[in-house]
Amino acid sequence: MTETNLATDAMTGTHSGPERTSQDAIETLVEEIGQRAKEAAQQLAGAPEAAKNKALAAAATAIRDRKAEIIEQNQQDVEGSSGLSAPLIDRLKLDESRIKSMATGLEEIRELPDPIGQVMAGWDRPNGLKIERVRVPLGVIGIIYESRPNVTADAGSLCLKAGNASVLRGGSESFRSSSAIVSCLRSGLGSAGLPEDSIQLIPTRDRSAVGAMLRLTDAIDVIVPRGGPSLINRVSSESRIPVIKHLDGIVHVYLDRSADPAIARDVVINSKMRRTSVCGAAETLLVDKASADSLLPPVIDALSKAGCEIRGDGATQKIDGRVLPADDSDWATEYLDAVIAIAQVDGVDGAIEHIGRYGSHHTDCIVAEDANTVSTFLGAVDSAILMHNVSTQFADGGEFGMGAEIGISTGKLHARGPVGAEQLTSYKYLVRGSGQTRP
Amino acid sequence: MTETNLATDAMTGTHSGPERTSQDAIETLVEEIGQRAKEAAQQLAGAPEAAKNKALAAAATAIRDRKAEIIEQNQQDVEGSSGLSAPLIDRLKLDESRIKSMATGLEEIRELPDPIGQVMAGWDRPNGLKIERVRVPLGVIGIIYESRPNVTADAGSLCLKAGNASVLRGGSESFRSSSAIVSCLRSGLGSAGLPEDSIQLIPTRDRSAVGAMLRLTDAIDVIVPRGGPSLINRVSSESRIPVIKHLDGIVHVYLDRSADPAIARDVVINSKMRRTSVCGAAETLLVDKASADSLLPPVIDALSKAGCEIRGDGATQKIDGRVLPADDSDWATEYLDAVIAIAQVDGVDGAIEHIGRYGSHHTDCIVAEDANTVSTFLGAVDSAILMHNVSTQFADGGEFGMGAEIGISTGKLHARGPVGAEQLTSYKYLVRGSGQTRP
Repeated sequence: MTETNLATDAMTGTHSGPERTSQDAIETLVEEIGQRAKEAAQQLAGAPEAAKNKALAAAATAIRDRKAEIIEQNQQDVEGSSGLSAPLIDRLKLDESRIKSMATGLEEIRELPDPIGQVMAGWDRPNGLKIERVRVPLGVIGIIYESRPNVTADAGSLCLKAGNASVLRGGSESFRSSSAIVSCLRSGLGSAGLPEDSIQLIPTRDRSAVGAMLRLTDAIDVIVPRGGPSLINRVSSESRIPVIKHLDGIVHVYLDRSADPAIARDVVINSKMRRTSVCGAAETLLVDKASADSLLPPVIDALSKAGCEIRGDGATQKIDGRVLPADDSDWATEYLDAVIAIAQVDGVDGAIEHIGRYGSHHTDCIVAEDANTVSTFLGAVDSAILMHNVSTQFADGGEFGMGAEIGISTGKLHARGPVGAEQLTSYKYLVRGSGQTRP
Repeated sequence: MTETNLATDAMTGTHSGPERTSQDAIETLVEEIGQRAKEAAQQLAGAPEAAKNKALAAAATAIRDRKAEIIEQNQQDVEGSSGLSAPLIDRLKLDESRIKSMATGLEEIRELPDPIGQVMAGWDRPNGLKIERVRVPLGVIGIIYESRPNVTADAGSLCLKAGNASVLRGGSESFRSSSAIVSCLRSGLGSAGLPEDSIQLIPTRDRSAVGAMLRLTDAIDVIVPRGGPSLINRVSSESRIPVIKHLDGIVHVYLDRSADPAIARDVVINSKMRRTSVCGAAETLLVDKASADSLLPPVIDALSKAGCEIRGDGATQKIDGRVLPADDSDWATEYLDAVIAIAQVDGVDGAIEHIGRYGSHHTDCIVAEDANTVSTFLGAVDSAILMHNVSTQFADGGEFGMGAEIGISTGKLHARGPVGAEQLTSYKYLVRGSGQTRP
């Protein structure tokens, strides 16, 4: 059973296809996809920048041209997903404006500098050897994500920009939408003379395909899971392939006794309420107990007026009657909603300790004017992104000036923080000489 | 049962200790070591350069002062290892000069620049945010290696230089020697006011301790296996912790039709024969069949005179009667001995294809004068180190000017090529502002 047959079956709505495929057939199918990806990656590694950019432009055009078809497939996805909650349905849904911005996204990635071939460092040795460290693609990247069809376009095209082949496995509820989008990306590749198998979607909804992907040690070089803790945990424990983790963002804002009250209020409100569903949204507010009585009331008032539910420890509840009791689980929860938990701590050391215990190594912020305190916080907190007097909603590859990203890595190996095209690369050393031998 | 008890038991030669420890006790023991390493790493992350350097200097002094004790322990190791082959016994053995060079090695690591706190990049955003990417330690590094006691000193001290705690597991035959060396390293840490648990040796010879280490996902951030393919394969398949792989070096030298014959001969002889036991030693010689008749005879003659066994394909056997037949397994073998396999290939594309099929992504070299051919080879071969007109024996962190290394990574994630102090680090982003909020 070929990919095309499966995809066609799924897209035409017949039920002879993916759902009935046996485990062995899925294993074989995924292995074949991996093999094709590996071959495509070898060609892609040497592809000129112009060809990759032509493929991205053609894919954007195809997405615009075929928007009616994509919307139709998406409507079928939405109709088949009645079990999903309203926010998840919202993530799944595509309309004209979302399709437009997907196409624009491809064009923005086209505009990024090509990282491949960049000389990252170069030096000469006393014996005349000339050494360079040069950026190369990673190879084949497996991406496992939830039912957000736009991730299909983002992830596939970002991998392509960095010369990597991708094997995409989107949430099963978005299968038809993702298939239609991948079809546009592949036609872009074809029209640029690049192998269409540079971007492949696992052509079955069967969940065992994920396990099969995680066993493809020979074909997939790195797995990027995007999704909730259960997906990340499954991938981390099952995968034999290195994983770039995107764990949840239990993001803290700490208000020090030296904080400027206006900055404190503005940073907290924006960090929490600008968009509550992003991983850089603040979840916990820590306040130096030495100044809680003065710093907190205007912050709580503004949060409350903005529609935020406020939970807090005992001392914070005493400050304002609108503060509901927080229990221990609140400190470890990523609400992704208009809810915040407030704890009073014993100065910057107390904040560092709290974050060390409950944090997720994503993004944490201090609001303070005292330089020593700021330096202590930035040095001691072990997170991918540390901020000072800035809204945590800036935790984003685009806001960092890195262009598109496929997420924020909370691991320390290979890539930490925003994962853009540059982070999807490796390097090799070139050593040039004139016949030198080692004594 | 504490680490000290176990180590003492083993070092005094009583048999009440490690060998009889039950699996559960070993699991608990290794977990405790991991926990202590994690706590030590947190302190070490903020340790000033001067303290780390003081610890390294004091450790070097301790190794010199206690050389008689180290040699005595080593003699017991050697006496207990009668089953080992002569080259392995040679790797295990310590004498005054090896101990001296171990101490000198620590001092050389002390002299290296401290990577921690380095600002790797910094830029300003149009909205006034100041972004820096700053080097930080990885955390806790687990190193699993064969019975080479000097690796204990190299690995522990290189991790320390980069602010990482290390959990060391050396080959069981070197257990007493490694224990004595670790004791010197720890006394150095103590005298510098740093936590002694920054460097720990797994205090039991029981092989199940390796499995227990590989399950310490909460405590160990990365595993570095050093050893033969069976160790690497075991670690890769069992480990739930990210691995920096050091696979075998099936190193190729390719002689192109445009090669300078004198450079060809010198590079081949040095790549193969300078030291045959290092991972950068050449194993396979590929020759452009267009020039094999002119390039090969002097090369074969020089190899033969240097005492190298020569195996070759049919065409190469016809060139010189001293060439023994090579079979398919020769192309995939890391001899680490005075043996070379010669294959004739169809120009640079044939060489690229051969290396793609049999290579190990370590180090490969082209000898050629034609710039286009060189550029094709360097671009297309997917190895950590690509060389042009240079002996492959330069594949070494020291020769690259990177100082000490704990190996050559053949993986693409995180670190590729020589792994020195800088490669044992991660980074974090510092974002400084003046109250910016995101629109």
